Amino acid sequence: MNLNRRQFSALAGATLLSSALPNLHAEDNGRRIGYCIVGLGRISMDHFMPATKMSKQSKITGIVSGHPDKARKMAAEYGVPERSIYTYENCDQMRDNKDIDAVYIALPNNMHAEYTIRAAKAGKHVLCEKPMCTSIADAYAMIDACKQNNVKLLIAYRCQYEPTNLRAISLIREGKLGTVQAIESANGFNIRPGEWRLNKKMAGGGPLLDVGIYSLNACRYLTGEEPAEVKAYSTTIDHDGRFDQVEENTSWTMKFPSGIVASCNTTYGANMNGFYRVHGSKGTLDVQSAFGYEGQYLKAQFNDKTSLDEPNPAKDPSQFARMGDYFSNCILKNEEPKTSGEEGLRDMQWMSKIYQSCGLSL
Amino acid sequence: MNLNRRQFSALAGATLLSSALPNLHAEDNGRRIGYCIVGLGRISMDHFMPATKMSKQSKITGIVSGHPDKARKMAAEYGVPERSIYTYENCDQMRDNKDIDAVYIALPNNMHAEYTIRAAKAGKHVLCEKPMCTSIADAYAMIDACKQNNVKLLIAYRCQYEPTNLRAISLIREGKLGTVQAIESANGFNIRPGEWRLNKKMAGGGPLLDVGIYSLNACRYLTGEEPAEVKAYSTTIDHDGRFDQVEENTSWTMKFPSGIVASCNTTYGANMNGFYRVHGSKGTLDVQSAFGYEGQYLKAQFNDKTSLDEPNPAKDPSQFARMGDYFSNCILKNEEPKTSGEEGLRDMQWMSKIYQSCGLSL
Repeated sequence: MNLNRRQFSALAGATLLSSALPNLHAEDNGRRIGYCIVGLGRISMDHFMPATKMSKQSKITGIVSGHPDKARKMAAEYGVPERSIYTYENCDQMRDNKDIDAVYIALPNNMHAEYTIRAAKAGKHVLCEKPMCTSIADAYAMIDACKQNNVKLLIAYRCQYEPTNLRAISLIREGKLGTVQAIESANGFNIRPGEWRLNKKMAGGGPLLDVGIYSLNACRYLTGEEPAEVKAYSTTIDHDGRFDQVEENTSWTMKFPSGIVASCNTTYGANMNGFYRVHGSKGTLDVQSAFGYEGQYLKAQFNDKTSLDEPNPAKDPSQFARMGDYFSNCILKNEEPKTSGEEGLRDMQWMSKIYQSCGLSL
Repeated sequence: MNLNRRQFSALAGATLLSSALPNLHAEDNGRRIGYCIVGLGRISMDHFMPATKMSKQSKITGIVSGHPDKARKMAAEYGVPERSIYTYENCDQMRDNKDIDAVYIALPNNMHAEYTIRAAKAGKHVLCEKPMCTSIADAYAMIDACKQNNVKLLIAYRCQYEPTNLRAISLIREGKLGTVQAIESANGFNIRPGEWRLNKKMAGGGPLLDVGIYSLNACRYLTGEEPAEVKAYSTTIDHDGRFDQVEENTSWTMKFPSGIVASCNTTYGANMNGFYRVHGSKGTLDVQSAFGYEGQYLKAQFNDKTSLDEPNPAKDPSQFARMGDYFSNCILKNEEPKTSGEEGLRDMQWMSKIYQSCGLSL
């Protein structure tokens, strides 16, 4: 994280305030950031693109796709003109398209670096899905390309813009849990055969990069610290062809400089319904469905017998709207986003260390 | 565990059946096992002894204590004659006391070995609190002494006789969760200054030996496997005098031979309300208050959208009654108990390896 605790609390508070407003937006300065969608998969078509319909600061102004029919259909739905539909071959031409301010990169992990760098060279800001990329070298190259071309880079850590996760962070920073001692977290799902996520080259790794990253990132934003050390195991139980290239399970424990410990699991073999539990000297905080597109549920139990029971009524696609609008505001106000390339790089570095501890590598 | 899966399932089923009977007991053969209480602390006076009042197979027939007044008061309450009250100095004389069949050892951890061995030499069966002792050598010595003197040894793993934990084991063995992939568990409490548990010599270690042992033991009985490897961290955050001798937090990850991974935390710095969560290919099982004297709560969510929601209405001291009567039955029927000395030894060995991984030792 680039922010110190005070800055982070202020930011979290501001975002919470904004979230209380009826249309999600703290302001409407009359200008919307135009996003070119790179990759028409589920996360683009079912989540990011629909979210812009509730936005006054973000809109869809371009599409990059290898499927002309699908591209034309989506372009029609979002009012994108024919001239703003690109293929992966000619998309560098978006350099000359003034309707496009930024790209949203929702491609298999191993393509994140190439298309981030191409977009940066075309002078476009980049909102890139997590994991940032598939190697630490790529992460540095992405950061450098964005800096050199004076464009902003945001890694799509949705949860850092989601009200329940921000509430958890605030409760911890305000000292409601006292001294935090330990965190447990898990995230995973039972993967279907044939997904690109099972291809090591495309995914860069197993469930750690895809879903375990949520637990890793959460431990970092909940503590406000970088880990000091990690130790881990990776295993594969199901020899059914799905896990010929990537591992099925990864389990890791982390020690933070303050002494906080964290124990995490991730899997492609079970539907985990991601959660975290934070134990402090004054109470325990528990968030269920912590990392999903909706349904976050925060409960806390304090030593003084008081408690919190806070289901989050927010529904998808509001999380994507919050994140997209946050980035649009960063662009409009020329502010550095909190989940910048450096934030993505740090997770890449820790995931690399987790794999090293397992005798694997990114 | 000494049992294979089939034996364990049969045992778990039998215990569940017994638990459905109104007075906890499957049979009443007219003979009660007489227990001599060694150590009048909270666990004896508030839990084990009251539990015998609901029992037809166990009764209190002797007391060993360094506090004559307290001993006389408890003796009066439980109908123990003056001649069956011993001090720590003269308690070997219980050899000649035919009213005493067994001892219940509820002393600081570092005294478990000495009094187990003395009781065994006096020809008495031994029900010893967990952790079994404070060194692997002591664990072997306890097992040997009981074998040589032809008495039974049960380590007080309450949860292995408690209905909700047995239900969790049964659900897993029956395949309701499909292939188990990963487990998270935590247990701990915010310790008060001055407790003997903070004295390294008396306790043998920190929260791992006292409360983390529940998570370790649970991972073993839930999987039905011995771990293959462990990696761990220990930390101390609160430099307030409590943790001058033992660590405050321990976090560990385990890999099992099948590939199941488990991530666990334990602490003396936060009230954790011990839990475990088991993730399988067909569903997730969650037990809250898993290790307490009462209030176990099992929930499960299966991939087919069915679910379980099973609060345990059982109240303390029934757990101690179940465990005590189980041991009484083992003695009466000359059967080897499932949580024998070997079971305790295995936890000692794994806790030793966890500490080794932290650069500490038992």
